[in-house]
Amino acid sequence: MIDTGLNPISSITMTDQAEEQLRDYFVNKGFSIGDTLPKEAELAEALGVSRSVIREALSRLRMLGMIDVRKRRGMILTEPDVLSGMSRILEPKLLSKETLKRLFEVRLMLEMGLGEFLYPRITEKHFMKLEDILGEEAHAGTKAELVELDIKFHSTLYEITGNPVIIRFQRMLQPIFQYGLDYRAELHKPGKPPKVTHRDLVDILKNGNAANFREAMRQHFELHFQLLS
Amino acid sequence: MIDTGLNPISSITMTDQAEEQLRDYFVNKGFSIGDTLPKEAELAEALGVSRSVIREALSRLRMLGMIDVRKRRGMILTEPDVLSGMSRILEPKLLSKETLKRLFEVRLMLEMGLGEFLYPRITEKHFMKLEDILGEEAHAGTKAELVELDIKFHSTLYEITGNPVIIRFQRMLQPIFQYGLDYRAELHKPGKPPKVTHRDLVDILKNGNAANFREAMRQHFELHFQLLS
Repeated sequence: MIDTGLNPISSITMTDQAEEQLRDYFVNKGFSIGDTLPKEAELAEALGVSRSVIREALSRLRMLGMIDVRKRRGMILTEPDVLSGMSRILEPKLLSKETLKRLFEVRLMLEMGLGEFLYPRITEKHFMKLEDILGEEAHAGTKAELVELDIKFHSTLYEITGNPVIIRFQRMLQPIFQYGLDYRAELHKPGKPPKVTHRDLVDILKNGNAANFREAMRQHFELHFQLLS
Repeated sequence: MIDTGLNPISSITMTDQAEEQLRDYFVNKGFSIGDTLPKEAELAEALGVSRSVIREALSRLRMLGMIDVRKRRGMILTEPDVLSGMSRILEPKLLSKETLKRLFEVRLMLEMGLGEFLYPRITEKHFMKLEDILGEEAHAGTKAELVELDIKFHSTLYEITGNPVIIRFQRMLQPIFQYGLDYRAELHKPGKPPKVTHRDLVDILKNGNAANFREAMRQHFELHFQLLS
């Protein structure tokens, strides 16, 4: 089950193996979310590995949200958190420029695809929040304030989708772009407003459709697309 | 740095703390990718935790691709793998229907946003690959074959972007949808071809532009969008 995809594969350790075996064991022995799992010692025996190896492997699964330890109930199987691993490594100092660029592309792709999900799910409350942000933008004095409001505006678009995976992914990604992408400063230079502004996007959300929104978003991101490729 | 976002927060263990402290330590002490790291014992002392706790925390970071152990050089800092954690938990039996649905929405968003990245990056080789798939589709006999070719077609679109994060993400996600989404069977019922076919999409890639492609993709996914919301 471990995806080694495009990674440089380093040597597989005992713990890597035990980690995979544990996952297989839980899935194939018919455990369901919420079930109490066998104790550490039993698992070590079932897999034929040492206690210290099983402890490391369990610690990894715990990090991924796949197991949890509860008072009186012991170790139980929980639904893993799809973003747990990623949330731990989004540190600009640890990621290469290339990776940051690729992540930024993912963000652009997602926002180009948001439109379809916004129209059926937007509420009056969302419109009010967007209008509030536009109001603040009109009075923002510094570049830092504008950058913050830009993030707030785009975060709100994600919130409208009601998709918790995407909402959290965007929250995790935003701070790394602030530090990681040199060219971002370019975007916020005075005299370089995007063709389509946040105001335009909100108007299109009110009176347009998903196709209009996609096209407007494309123009809003014009500078990003120019600077990226 | 740990993002606890929308997760149910369980108790923070010593290992959770040590894991976060280790990351901070590596970043703030100025270590760079490729640097040799202090030994386990030194780290345990620096953080004031036991050897077994530091070993678990290091094992987690190793799982995330943040450290690696090399012959003669010992433990070194490596660029983490953004998808390492996620690749380990995409097991349909462990994920709720709700999570699968949300991940499927992410997939739809991404593909709605692919267009912008396809036109500048597509090569003659990609066109040949797409044509080959269309040829195979014309002769596919079984539903299983068509599903496989459908995956192959969409995977190829991701490949054209040249973005390794997104390519691998799609590869990881595809198998889980085969099992996890009940309604998928609906899509492959005879007599239900999408308005816009793979053939149409390839023609638009040849002779159209990103805006045409977005609109075509929307129609290609018509049934998905209907069945989802």
